[in-house]
Amino acid sequence: MEREHFSRQFDLDLNEIREKLIEMGGKVEWMMDNAMQSLLERNTELAEQTIAFDKEIDRLEMEIDRNCLVVLALRQPAARDLRFITLALKIVTDLEQIGDQCSSIARRVRELNREPSLRPIIDLRRMAQAVSTMVREALDAFVRGDHILAGKVCGDDQVVDRLNEQIQRELLAVMLGGPAIIGRAVRINQISKRLERIADHATNVAEMVIFMVKGKDIRHAA
Amino acid sequence: MEREHFSRQFDLDLNEIREKLIEMGGKVEWMMDNAMQSLLERNTELAEQTIAFDKEIDRLEMEIDRNCLVVLALRQPAARDLRFITLALKIVTDLEQIGDQCSSIARRVRELNREPSLRPIIDLRRMAQAVSTMVREALDAFVRGDHILAGKVCGDDQVVDRLNEQIQRELLAVMLGGPAIIGRAVRINQISKRLERIADHATNVAEMVIFMVKGKDIRHAA
Repeated sequence: MEREHFSRQFDLDLNEIREKLIEMGGKVEWMMDNAMQSLLERNTELAEQTIAFDKEIDRLEMEIDRNCLVVLALRQPAARDLRFITLALKIVTDLEQIGDQCSSIARRVRELNREPSLRPIIDLRRMAQAVSTMVREALDAFVRGDHILAGKVCGDDQVVDRLNEQIQRELLAVMLGGPAIIGRAVRINQISKRLERIADHATNVAEMVIFMVKGKDIRHAA
Repeated sequence: MEREHFSRQFDLDLNEIREKLIEMGGKVEWMMDNAMQSLLERNTELAEQTIAFDKEIDRLEMEIDRNCLVVLALRQPAARDLRFITLALKIVTDLEQIGDQCSSIARRVRELNREPSLRPIIDLRRMAQAVSTMVREALDAFVRGDHILAGKVCGDDQVVDRLNEQIQRELLAVMLGGPAIIGRAVRINQISKRLERIADHATNVAEMVIFMVKGKDIRHAA
């Protein structure tokens, strides 16, 4: 009886961690979408909201870390459960870093909105959409334990890398237009770099999902 | 004559980028040392200074990015010089992220200092020293184009990973002591994770130095 109670409580603990990770993932997606929207619509207030929201992500990270450590310390999980907890501890760090990157994008947007608009960089929007899809799919793959979807995310990383290179080239051409727009070009370049980093974090998560499902570590295998 | 002037100006440009990267590296090291000192000495004022200093790192990143983009757009460097600029653009992102991690460590220190001291975690100090050495040596390797030193940095990453695992185990034992210290254990765990991330960034830089010197990409080769 006591053993059964223990195991039920343990399942509840794991479920709570899973649900908080999903919540955190949703909030990080929200930050990313808002950071990009604030850029495209030149909405500084939305940029400010995005920057301020990073505190909530930090709070969630600490909460999930706490849950994981308590389970590790008190319940000493083994095998698959241990793998899940270890994974959760790592995913939470990637999500927190995505939050940092979004907040950094929003800070660049705030600066860009103080200057006249640079002609729309179409590829940046496309890149942001691709990255946003990667983040969402990496989390879906985690929730469903879907290693096929996780594999797709890893492949998409190359698409984002190519878009980033394309934007860099486009920016160099824009900068030849004159020194007055260099400051803005630099900020757009930074946003592009941040998006690339977010894609890297999504790829990290996807690789870890494959590890969780198949027990196979594909990191550093490319 | 004009060609010669062009090439002299180009060397000056590259040198300016190199020197700003060294400056930024020194400032990031300063942040890291202060973040750890603020933890070990329970010095909240120093933690605040470290958090505030992150703005200066952001400013330097933007300045170096600007220099690199201007050189790329106006001087169209080739071969080794192009590799140097590309490298600089990437290193600057790693340095900026190290700054973010230091600021995040300092935020956890600020919270920790509001509560009674947890017994000193000796390994955390050792880990911080190892990571600090990695950052310094990665930058030295970059400045001197020293791929042997860069190789050492890559190897040291495993030492840091092991120290991190050791700290995790130690923390689990500490947490069994009672629920009152779990909050502090979680924060110390986060500092350990941040230090591990900083070591990853130093390794990134070292791998890129090897790429610059030998033209060989060792990323994802382990």
